[in-house]
Amino acid sequence: MAKDYDAVIIGAGPGGYAAGIKCARNGLKTAVIERDKPGGTCLNYGCIPSKALLGSAEFIIKARHANLMGLDVSFGEPNWGRIQSRKDAIVKSFTSGVEGLLRSNGAELIIDDAEVKENGSVRLKNAGREISCEHIILASGSEPKGIPSIPFDGKKVISSKEALNLKEIPKSMVIIGGGVIGCEMGCLYASMGCKTTIIEALPRLLPREDDWAGRLLEKEFRKINLKALTDVKVSSAETSGDLCRLHLSSGEVLESEKVLVAVGRRPVISEETAKALSLELSVGEVVIDEKMQTSAKGVYALGDLAGKTYLAHGAYLEAEILADILAGKGGQIKDYHLVPRAVYSFPEAAGVGLTEKEAREKGIDYSVTKSGFLANGRSLAHNQTAGEVRIIKDKADGRIVGVSMVGESATEMISTARLIIGTNEKAGEVSFPHPTVSEVLKEAWMGAYGESIHLPPQK
Amino acid sequence: MAKDYDAVIIGAGPGGYAAGIKCARNGLKTAVIERDKPGGTCLNYGCIPSKALLGSAEFIIKARHANLMGLDVSFGEPNWGRIQSRKDAIVKSFTSGVEGLLRSNGAELIIDDAEVKENGSVRLKNAGREISCEHIILASGSEPKGIPSIPFDGKKVISSKEALNLKEIPKSMVIIGGGVIGCEMGCLYASMGCKTTIIEALPRLLPREDDWAGRLLEKEFRKINLKALTDVKVSSAETSGDLCRLHLSSGEVLESEKVLVAVGRRPVISEETAKALSLELSVGEVVIDEKMQTSAKGVYALGDLAGKTYLAHGAYLEAEILADILAGKGGQIKDYHLVPRAVYSFPEAAGVGLTEKEAREKGIDYSVTKSGFLANGRSLAHNQTAGEVRIIKDKADGRIVGVSMVGESATEMISTARLIIGTNEKAGEVSFPHPTVSEVLKEAWMGAYGESIHLPPQK
Repeated sequence: MAKDYDAVIIGAGPGGYAAGIKCARNGLKTAVIERDKPGGTCLNYGCIPSKALLGSAEFIIKARHANLMGLDVSFGEPNWGRIQSRKDAIVKSFTSGVEGLLRSNGAELIIDDAEVKENGSVRLKNAGREISCEHIILASGSEPKGIPSIPFDGKKVISSKEALNLKEIPKSMVIIGGGVIGCEMGCLYASMGCKTTIIEALPRLLPREDDWAGRLLEKEFRKINLKALTDVKVSSAETSGDLCRLHLSSGEVLESEKVLVAVGRRPVISEETAKALSLELSVGEVVIDEKMQTSAKGVYALGDLAGKTYLAHGAYLEAEILADILAGKGGQIKDYHLVPRAVYSFPEAAGVGLTEKEAREKGIDYSVTKSGFLANGRSLAHNQTAGEVRIIKDKADGRIVGVSMVGESATEMISTARLIIGTNEKAGEVSFPHPTVSEVLKEAWMGAYGESIHLPPQK
Repeated sequence: MAKDYDAVIIGAGPGGYAAGIKCARNGLKTAVIERDKPGGTCLNYGCIPSKALLGSAEFIIKARHANLMGLDVSFGEPNWGRIQSRKDAIVKSFTSGVEGLLRSNGAELIIDDAEVKENGSVRLKNAGREISCEHIILASGSEPKGIPSIPFDGKKVISSKEALNLKEIPKSMVIIGGGVIGCEMGCLYASMGCKTTIIEALPRLLPREDDWAGRLLEKEFRKINLKALTDVKVSSAETSGDLCRLHLSSGEVLESEKVLVAVGRRPVISEETAKALSLELSVGEVVIDEKMQTSAKGVYALGDLAGKTYLAHGAYLEAEILADILAGKGGQIKDYHLVPRAVYSFPEAAGVGLTEKEAREKGIDYSVTKSGFLANGRSLAHNQTAGEVRIIKDKADGRIVGVSMVGESATEMISTARLIIGTNEKAGEVSFPHPTVSEVLKEAWMGAYGESIHLPPQK
């Protein structure tokens, strides 16, 4: 009997909608099922709204330096209402864009709550019907992790989801967790004049990156009145009064209007589905191979649900490749380290490839070449001179294995770094325009081979 | 008899000082002779001061949109004195940096006026002595081209050199020439509130790039009150009164305080040197081969003097490679088209590889893929949505042969584009972070192979 669909995708976040469009383009009869809003966390509660708010925040931070740039400026309080409505308008334009893209490419979007009955069969709970299919792609995403002793109440103890939609700028906020979300939300609220403190249990911010990056951010954050306490845990919390009171392992007590818990995200999967398919999980994440195959035949998973990157563009990459696999074109994920990591803090931070820590763990004999923004003409022109690019080279074969950076345009330059890692061209033969911020990266690349005329010679 | 030096370089601009440092590092006994200031046009009268001023101007333009970004701002007139002194400080830090770099790498910097007597012999006019050497590198740069009928007077009829050092913001300025310098200076002065008009004899701005780029700039320039008149020539000029009066071929008459002539640059070489070496010239440019060898044995030329790119980073590339050639390491310039072109206008424009026009002239059967900034999340977050990336693909072998762009970060993203041209990786396997401006480029790259889920499918 013919199946209703070739591919059914559960979840219309970045991984799900990208897979939907690409499967449909590849000629598969495709349905994407979403119980909330198309676009998933990225469009509705993550990447896009946060960057829209940070766009305003960055502007405010820069306006404070207007005087230095030669413009006498006086400005009032941030107009939070307008900042929020600008963000909402941007988000709305994208969610309707996703619906349109699915439709125009011939993929069906079904708004319903889906549950997998068995391989090849998906139940639409609200419609009360079942659909059959050849392939199932699980792409139901993730949600903010909570702390049991400081449960979310959505008002005073909030997640990033609420933090993007506050009605007013709070007077004070403590952010538990100094990872990507903690750093970005910290920069946002500190810029808006909220007394903001980040608490990180590990000895530095951005634990995913090498030590220097987090330490440099900590130093730069002070300049925008964003305080970070590292190597500190929350011992106990009182959240019943007007202000939340957090007792820290250092003995310090912090009072704040809001506590933002940003200690990571965890996959979301219906219990019935996991049970029906006997899905192999690892710490809640669906286990997949390099072809995104789960432990259940004909069932694939990608994006946050599989926990490989917890990044929208990581999910895009998986979706691109999986759609080709399902269409019989082959392919597989080669190396998740090559999915760039980007932090939209002030200054920005980014990485691609291996960190030093990872290179050490792999037993690689590596060199590190550093290049600073302070000597860069364009960075001086922009008055954005904080930061550094570091390039990690495998001494054995001379290949660049990792690039890390903190500074202006890091989230953009990391794409150039990604291509440097993959290229066969020699640094000395590749010309970057002068004067650009990208030259900071170029110098480090040249320097890794002892070829930079601006960096001290090295072997 | 032992020569005084292995390499003597005439001119300490980007090409000269880079060659000096690299030759010295390569173990050659090296002298760099400069008659003006180390750093050449780039540091003193070009790239660096213009970008410092444009940094302030960009800030002023953005401040005008503060309201949209959620910040109520009131600002006064640009403080030109502070803008100029900020620029001067940046320039100064770099010129002393160049001196330090030459010294620390063991290259001698001689401030004198040099003249080549014959192969292997350079006369220092002021010191009144001669030095002998194995190799001579001519790197004496270029100067602004004038218009005979509207001669520079340094006050009302000025070049880019004076335009970077005006004591006051003029009330009005006409810029003759709509190339890179004309567009950048136009944006600078229009931002400062000067009534600015660019006149271009060709049918569009930026004649070096494909038509669409110049036309798009022209449209965007109107938004910052920068007027461009294309396909118009100056018939006659009166520059003796308080205001300059330019009579145009269109019949229009333009009055302005300043006339900036920006119709290109021409090489600077001492007549004695050219004569002594019987140097082959072409329209004033020293003719070189792909190893930068001139028609005179043991005499090399690079940078603006050889006229290949008229770009600082073009000169850097030549210097890098020539220093290796002289040290016996081999090498040659492979393709000048791969030196990126960058225009720091508002918005920015950039290109690398072939333009469509060049691809046509070479008989290449090509496709063009377009990707706009308006659909890009980061561009929306920054409120910088004007522009487009175009990718030119050779249909025969599927290789990207050219990338052009107008829009936010174009001068930075063109480095990523440069690497895309050289890479062997597939677009679908290379992940760029989301949401970044760089995704506009990624979409065009994917689109060139029919793989973008956001662009309409194409063959």
